[in-house]
Amino acid sequence: MELIEEGCDVLLYLDHRRTYLVKVRGDREFHTHKGFIRLGELIGKPYGCAVESNLGVRFYALKPLVRDRVLKTERRTQVIYPKDMGFILLMADVGPGRRVVEAGTGSGALTLALANAVKPNGRVYSYEIRPEFQRGARRNIERAGLAAYVEFKLRDITEGIEEEDVDAVILDMATPWLVVPHAYKALKGGGVFLSFSPTIEQVMRTVSALRGYPFIEVETYEIMLRRFIVEENRTRPETLMIGHTGYITVGRKVLE
Amino acid sequence: MELIEEGCDVLLYLDHRRTYLVKVRGDREFHTHKGFIRLGELIGKPYGCAVESNLGVRFYALKPLVRDRVLKTERRTQVIYPKDMGFILLMADVGPGRRVVEAGTGSGALTLALANAVKPNGRVYSYEIRPEFQRGARRNIERAGLAAYVEFKLRDITEGIEEEDVDAVILDMATPWLVVPHAYKALKGGGVFLSFSPTIEQVMRTVSALRGYPFIEVETYEIMLRRFIVEENRTRPETLMIGHTGYITVGRKVLE
Amino acid sequence: MELIEEGCDVLLYLDHRRTYLVKVRGDREFHTHKGFIRLGELIGKPYGCAVESNLGVRFYALKPLVRDRVLKTERRTQVIYPKDMGFILLMADVGPGRRVVEAGTGSGALTLALANAVKPNGRVYSYEIRPEFQRGARRNIERAGLAAYVEFKLRDITEGIEEEDVDAVILDMATPWLVVPHAYKALKGGGVFLSFSPTIEQVMRTVSALRGYPFIEVETYEIMLRRFIVEENRTRPETLMIGHTGYITVGRKVLE
Amino acid sequence: MELIEEGCDVLLYLDHRRTYLVKVRGDREFHTHKGFIRLGELIGKPYGCAVESNLGVRFYALKPLVRDRVLKTERRTQVIYPKDMGFILLMADVGPGRRVVEAGTGSGALTLALANAVKPNGRVYSYEIRPEFQRGARRNIERAGLAAYVEFKLRDITEGIEEEDVDAVILDMATPWLVVPHAYKALKGGGVFLSFSPTIEQVMRTVSALRGYPFIEVETYEIMLRRFIVEENRTRPETLMIGHTGYITVGRKVLE
Repeated sequence: MELIEEGCDVLLYLDHRRTYLVKVRGDREFHTHKGFIRLGELIGKPYGCAVESNLGVRFYALKPLVRDRVLKTERRTQVIYPKDMGFILLMADVGPGRRVVEAGTGSGALTLALANAVKPNGRVYSYEIRPEFQRGARRNIERAGLAAYVEFKLRDITEGIEEEDVDAVILDMATPWLVVPHAYKALKGGGVFLSFSPTIEQVMRTVSALRGYPFIEVETYEIMLRRFIVEENRTRPETLMIGHTGYITVGRKVLE
Repeated sequence: MELIEEGCDVLLYLDHRRTYLVKVRGDREFHTHKGFIRLGELIGKPYGCAVESNLGVRFYALKPLVRDRVLKTERRTQVIYPKDMGFILLMADVGPGRRVVEAGTGSGALTLALANAVKPNGRVYSYEIRPEFQRGARRNIERAGLAAYVEFKLRDITEGIEEEDVDAVILDMATPWLVVPHAYKALKGGGVFLSFSPTIEQVMRTVSALRGYPFIEVETYEIMLRRFIVEENRTRPETLMIGHTGYITVGRKVLE
Repeated sequence: MELIEEGCDVLLYLDHRRTYLVKVRGDREFHTHKGFIRLGELIGKPYGCAVESNLGVRFYALKPLVRDRVLKTERRTQVIYPKDMGFILLMADVGPGRRVVEAGTGSGALTLALANAVKPNGRVYSYEIRPEFQRGARRNIERAGLAAYVEFKLRDITEGIEEEDVDAVILDMATPWLVVPHAYKALKGGGVFLSFSPTIEQVMRTVSALRGYPFIEVETYEIMLRRFIVEENRTRPETLMIGHTGYITVGRKVLE
Repeated sequence: MELIEEGCDVLLYLDHRRTYLVKVRGDREFHTHKGFIRLGELIGKPYGCAVESNLGVRFYALKPLVRDRVLKTERRTQVIYPKDMGFILLMADVGPGRRVVEAGTGSGALTLALANAVKPNGRVYSYEIRPEFQRGARRNIERAGLAAYVEFKLRDITEGIEEEDVDAVILDMATPWLVVPHAYKALKGGGVFLSFSPTIEQVMRTVSALRGYPFIEVETYEIMLRRFIVEENRTRPETLMIGHTGYITVGRKVLE
């Protein structure tokens, strides 16, 4: 059984809307509007345990999942949602050992999911042109213990990709179509190009660029997720849903 | 650069609808209605290369991705779609090193995606009660080179789970609610219960069962995927889409 | 050309989010945070004309459409949305001359759309048990000039329907299944039963009740509407959408 | 109670997939693969009644609803679906007494719904350039008894609209943007422009054209309909759904 240690992150869960990502320091207290929690009390307890604040309110101390960290990412930019992230990882075949180019790094939310998926022997090359974004993302990745699997690059990916023979190029940026020639060059045969774009115009330009190179299976998708509320005599889909985040365009390099 | 070798699987791609998962044997031919391909010609070539049939029709030889293998799974049962599979992996936090219980094995499509995600040091425990299903799934997993990461179990999971302290229990079976007590016992603190069910009644019973145990963040989702056709002056969503596959119910064990 | 007259309703349009349903009185001013409009200035002008407030802000004076009035209905209860309303009218075959039973009246939004559709020689019988709702709905209907086509009934429809040989029974109420026997009796052969319900449990009970009587083509639908934002280089579906309002269950009476 | 008469249309209903729109002639038989029905037997019976074929198979004789006739329209072109049709009628405020311009007539399915909605004192002006389409549509409208409310025009609406001061212009044609100037001229103040288009490019051009004229509330929508299957322990949305038919763009003329 895995126990909580000094220096680990825990997700303190009060209820569905109130969770806190906290580093465990034996000499610290974590203050909430429901009282404070002595973090030292957590050390040596199993993940998933209950802990009470000084006001007697119960919290649970969870080991953060990738999706928890994604949701807790400092958001300077729009973050890719879990509904899209899972599909992106599957479509780009991101798994242990893969070498993946990503741009832009942004808040590092997708970087984090990629890094977790390629470990222990794969690598993520993450391009970003804004130093302050890179710094924030680096903090998130280090905190998640995934720094060994990510190479952060302060470069403009529209000017070229330095890596060769990579398994996938994954883009979440304003002008993905400008990266298509570089992606073709950087990918290995059969490698996956994937772009996430909010607008139709981006999709049109990207698909058009892909058709100028030997990419096959060029397809665009959108994913809709709806929460379903299950309560006796009140079972129904949620009233408000996220209607759109972005389109996902995929292609696969072949050799001519 | 990775080269095609004797004994490897390649995905022969003719067009979007016609792809073939083929084992490379130097002395064999692969016959299609567009002529035959001498498989020996592929050996030593890079993945992604073009190859012509004796009738001069071009195919591409791709390295199969997880999603290719999923779609090529012998289907005795309904297979979980990529749209759901990506979300399942993310929500259940399936990644390298995880220990995951799955039931039922079925065709092994989800087993394959799980095994690929947990390697090289994780493990999938896959329960199934129908020997013929298990045999078919085992063939798929062995062919994908993932047998080292899967333990197939010919047991009824509604009677108990033998593993302890697992990271996730993932169910795609008729009566998931009967597994809830066993899942609670088998999961470690903070571990994820996830069930994929086509019908509302299954969801209602499963959620009700989860509420009888200390599970938090019990939520149900549905994922809709729509392909978007991008062609000049014909850009639009596809006419027919998959409107429903199943609901995904998730919960997280806490300790009381 | 139709001109604005004393006593008419106009919809004063400032922008997409700010519209006002106002009765034209020659001696009155209509005050907004963008200044006031002398309503007398509108008299004799054509609908669709521009008018300026005393602060020089431009408004347009529109003739209210049914959908304007629906959105301006005093909302004591959830109002049926246009996406559902159009489908309801079509599925229940509500058109000029039809005799339609409705329950409950609620805010009168659906009553208004029904009344407008059945005029000049049809009739809506609208059941409601809460006098204050009926009063509010009556005001809305009178203001829209549709009072001649509606008979308001302060009765509990679960205890019976007084009308006979009606074309449709349309329900937006908590317990539609209790009305099924009465609806069967009140409908003419081939007449349409239609129920709008937010929850699955309501749908299950209603469909089960319908199957106990000679109804054919018993079907349940849900309608999703997504706004599509069309702006140069920003074209995309809206981010937040209404994910669920209610299920629409329809059946058609036959004679045994 | 309304009785079936010689010369009326009935919808013979066998089951959900098999319905037949038949004109009642006392001396005719209607032949199906389940035997034949003597149509004379129907005369004098109420709509909704059961009738048996000579093989003892039961059919029901229904009075055709607008939606039945729409689905039975001879389809030379794609027909607008009920999910869109209801929304179109509501958004364009089509009701008794309205004067509506439509193009193209096509199969006449939408013409039929419009004509039924505007009767007894409104009128539909339906433009079409292909004589054979107009002939087919005219047959459908005459058969439905709605000919008095439709003026068929064999003209190219992109060259102009002859009517003035109309309540709505409703377009289901390849180049709706070319009609925008004519629609602006033909509409009365506050009148509704509505266009149904399958592709994004059509939508983009139409919205752009609308923005060149004084139209307000220019919005584009898409409607998705999903059937929900309600059967004990099998309740769930349908597997395959119509993912896309077309986008609906609406605007409202104001006077400058």
